[in-house]
Amino acid sequence: MQAQEIKRQLQAFLSGAEIIEADDAFLLDQRRRYRGRADWVVQPASVENVQHVMRFCFEHGIAVTPQGGNTGLCGAAVPDGGLLLSLSRLNRIRSISLADNAITVDAGAVLQNVQQAAAEAGRLFPLSLASEGSCQIGGNIACNAGGLNVLRYGTMRDLVLGLEVVLPNGELISHLPPLHKNTTGYDLRHLFIGSEGTLGIITGASLKLFAQPQTTETAWVGVATISQAVALLTLMQAEFAERLCSFELVSRFALDLSADFSKIAGPVDAPWHVLLELTDSVARDDLGDLLAEFLVAHGFDNAVLAQSESERQNLWTLRENISASQRNLGASIKHDIAVPIERVAEFVERCAPALQTAFAGIQIVVFGHLGDGSLHYNTFLPGVLGNEVYQYEDAVNTIVYENVLACAGTIAAEHGIGQVKNQWLPRVRSEVEIALMRAIKAELDPGNLLNANKLLP
Amino acid sequence: MQAQEIKRQLQAFLSGAEIIEADDAFLLDQRRRYRGRADWVVQPASVENVQHVMRFCFEHGIAVTPQGGNTGLCGAAVPDGGLLLSLSRLNRIRSISLADNAITVDAGAVLQNVQQAAAEAGRLFPLSLASEGSCQIGGNIACNAGGLNVLRYGTMRDLVLGLEVVLPNGELISHLPPLHKNTTGYDLRHLFIGSEGTLGIITGASLKLFAQPQTTETAWVGVATISQAVALLTLMQAEFAERLCSFELVSRFALDLSADFSKIAGPVDAPWHVLLELTDSVARDDLGDLLAEFLVAHGFDNAVLAQSESERQNLWTLRENISASQRNLGASIKHDIAVPIERVAEFVERCAPALQTAFAGIQIVVFGHLGDGSLHYNTFLPGVLGNEVYQYEDAVNTIVYENVLACAGTIAAEHGIGQVKNQWLPRVRSEVEIALMRAIKAELDPGNLLNANKLLP
Repeated sequence: MQAQEIKRQLQAFLSGAEIIEADDAFLLDQRRRYRGRADWVVQPASVENVQHVMRFCFEHGIAVTPQGGNTGLCGAAVPDGGLLLSLSRLNRIRSISLADNAITVDAGAVLQNVQQAAAEAGRLFPLSLASEGSCQIGGNIACNAGGLNVLRYGTMRDLVLGLEVVLPNGELISHLPPLHKNTTGYDLRHLFIGSEGTLGIITGASLKLFAQPQTTETAWVGVATISQAVALLTLMQAEFAERLCSFELVSRFALDLSADFSKIAGPVDAPWHVLLELTDSVARDDLGDLLAEFLVAHGFDNAVLAQSESERQNLWTLRENISASQRNLGASIKHDIAVPIERVAEFVERCAPALQTAFAGIQIVVFGHLGDGSLHYNTFLPGVLGNEVYQYEDAVNTIVYENVLACAGTIAAEHGIGQVKNQWLPRVRSEVEIALMRAIKAELDPGNLLNANKLLP
Repeated sequence: MQAQEIKRQLQAFLSGAEIIEADDAFLLDQRRRYRGRADWVVQPASVENVQHVMRFCFEHGIAVTPQGGNTGLCGAAVPDGGLLLSLSRLNRIRSISLADNAITVDAGAVLQNVQQAAAEAGRLFPLSLASEGSCQIGGNIACNAGGLNVLRYGTMRDLVLGLEVVLPNGELISHLPPLHKNTTGYDLRHLFIGSEGTLGIITGASLKLFAQPQTTETAWVGVATISQAVALLTLMQAEFAERLCSFELVSRFALDLSADFSKIAGPVDAPWHVLLELTDSVARDDLGDLLAEFLVAHGFDNAVLAQSESERQNLWTLRENISASQRNLGASIKHDIAVPIERVAEFVERCAPALQTAFAGIQIVVFGHLGDGSLHYNTFLPGVLGNEVYQYEDAVNTIVYENVLACAGTIAAEHGIGQVKNQWLPRVRSEVEIALMRAIKAELDPGNLLNANKLLP
C-alpha cells in the first residue's frame, strides 16, 4: 500500500496528531549508526488505538517497528519500512498501590517520571541507568534493562509484576493486577520481557516498588587485582547482604581518563578500583563506621569513604564520566558482556593479550558492574576514525566473544541483541532453542510484520 | 510396546537399579486423591541416561511423567501409563560459587539438602515450605513453589539463575553458569519454570544464594480487621523494607483450632492475627526494640514479641499446625489463591457469605501469606466424609474462584494447575494465550508424550 493511502486509511481511527512525518528523531538510533526508513510515525493516544493500528497492519501486511525513547544501543528500534509505532503519547502513571508495593504505568512513561512518581508516594523504583531521562518503561522491559542497581534489585525482568501487550493481530493480553504469586500455565510474561519488540507491543506494566533508602554510605577502594575486588565483593555480600547496592569496577586507565576529563583527582592510586555503595531503609548513624571497620579489618585500607553528599557525587561523577571521557581515544567498538563473577579476572587476563596481539596499540577501557558480573569492555583502535571502525568490528568482536564464551559468559548482558548481534545468536543458543523461538514468533506474528530481522538470526 | 519389551530395551542403556516396579510411593499423590499407573519407574543415575530414556520414548511413542519428591498438591506428577521418570538418583550438589552467590545442583536434590549445603558454605538458600524434607528442587522449579519467604526472596522463579533441561526428543539445553544478566533472545528458562513437567525434564539448576540472617525478631499481633493487617504490612514495608521476611495472616478460628491442637495458648485475643518476622544479615541488638517501638507508635499494641528462641518456636508452631489441626473438621476442599493485597479484605468479606448461603454450616479456615497476597482458603462441609467431598468440589470452587476473579486474583498461587485446575485455565488465560501455550508444547513435544493432560485444558 502506498504511503498516502496508508495515511488516508489510518485517519479513519487516528487523529491527525497521531500520524506524523518520520524524521531523524525517530529514524536515527542513539549511537548514530543506523538510519532507518518509515512511511509514517504513528503515536497512538490510547491502547485501543494501538490495537486499531496493529489490526490494520495485520490485515494489510504492513511492517511495524515499536519504539520507546529511542535510546537503545543495538539498533532494535530502527524501522525498515512500514510504520514506526511510538509509545510516547501513552505516558500516564496509572495507579499506585502501597499495600501491594506496586505501580502501574503506561509503557511510554519515561523512566525518570516513574522514579519520581514512586518517590512522591514514599517508595523507590530502583531501575537506574544513563538514559533514564528519556528512555521509556516499555523499552526498558523489551530489552530487559540493567543499570546500576541490579546487584540489589535485579534487572527489569525482576521488577515486572504484570504486563499489558497488544499482539501483532491487534488482540490484547492484559495481566496488570499486582500479583506476587501466580502460576497459571506457561509464563508468557517473560517471553515478552527481553523480546525487543518482536512479539507484541507492550502498552502497560505493573512494577515492583521498594522502601526508600534512609542511609547511604559510599566508598572508593583501590585494589591490586580484579581477584581482590571479587574477594571484597564476596565478603561484603556475606556481611552486608542486600544493603550492598552498587559494586562497580574501574580500571586505572579508565579512572585516569575520567579524572582528567572531570577535573577531579582520583581518590586513591591502584591498578584497579571499586566504587561501592551501601543503603539502608532504616536511618542509622553507624553504617559508615561499620563499613570503615570492615574494610580495615579485611585489609582493604587503600580506601576513601565519602564524608559528605558532595564527596559522594564526586565519586559517582568519576564513574559516570568514563563513557564521555573515553571519546578522546577515538572511535570505539564497545561490548556489553557478562561472565560469572569468579571468572571476570580470567576473562580480562586472557582477552587483553589476544586483542593486543591482533591489533598493535589497541586501547582497552574496562569498567562495569562487577557486582553482577557485567562489564563494559570498550576497545579503541589507534588512528581509526568514525565509521571506519566498523570494518574492524567483526575481527574485534570475534576475539572478545570467543574469550567471553570460553569463560562461560554472555555476549549480551543488558543492551539486548537488536540488529548488532543477531548473527551471534546461534553461538549462544542451540538450534532447538532458536527453532522454538521461531515457532513462538510465527505463532504470534505469522506474517513476520513486527520488527522483522531483529533479535533472531 | 508391551511392558516387558520396554524393560528389555531399556536395559540396553540403564542398569537394573535404574528400572524398578511402580508402587504407591510413586503412583499415589500426596493428597491420596489420584492413583496413577505406569509400566515402570525409571530412576536414571545420570543426565545422559535421562537423555537415553527420552530419546527411546520419543522414538517409540511412549508416555513419560517426570516426578520429584511426589509432594505436589495438584496431581501434576501422577502418571497415566508409560514410564514414570523419577529424578531421585540425580541428587548431587554440583558446585557453589561464593563470588557469584550461587549454588548448582541436580534437579533431584531434596530442598532441605540444598538449604544445608548453602548453610555449610555460610549462605542462605531461602525457599522454605512444609514439604522441604522430601520435595525436590526440580519439582519446586516445575511448579514455581512459594512458601514462607516469598515476601523477601521471591518465589522459586526468582531464585533460578540457570537451568539444564532434557527435551522430549532427548536433546539437552544447558545454561547453568550463574549469570545475573543475560538477554540473548526469548527467555526460555521461564517457560520451563512453572511448566509442571510438560515441556521437558529439568535435570539441573543454578540457584541464587543470600547472606545468612544474624538477627531474627518475631512478633504476633492481634488486629480487628484484615484491613488493619494490610495497613500494618504497608507501614512495615516502608520502614523495614527487605528485613520483613514473613507476614502471615491467621483467622481467630484458625488460631483457636491450632492452639487447641498444639496445646499452646493463643498469644493474644483478636478477630485476626499476624505472625511477622524480621531478619537482618548484620548482628544488631536493637532490632527488637525498634520493632516494639514501631508497633506501639502505630497503635498495634495487642502484640507479643518472642523473647527467646522457644517462644519464637511456639509462635511458628501455632502457624504451622493449622493444617494438621483443621483435619478434625472433616474432609476439606482447599484453595491456593492470591489476590492483590489491597483486595484481600474485600475477597474474604464477599466470599464467606456466598459460601454460607450456598452451603449452610460450611466452616472456613483462612490463613496464608498476606505479605504476598496468597491465602490458603480451606472449606469444610458439615457431615461430609472422605472422598464424598469431591462431589461438592465444583460448586464450592465455582463460588470461591468467581470471587477471586472478581477481585482480580489468581486461582493458582503457589501449587500449580496440574490436573485439578486445568479446566479453569480458559477462565484466567485468553484463547490466544492458550493457543500460544499449545504451540510451544507442540513444538517441543509433537507426540504429546510428556505429562499429557496436565496444566493445559
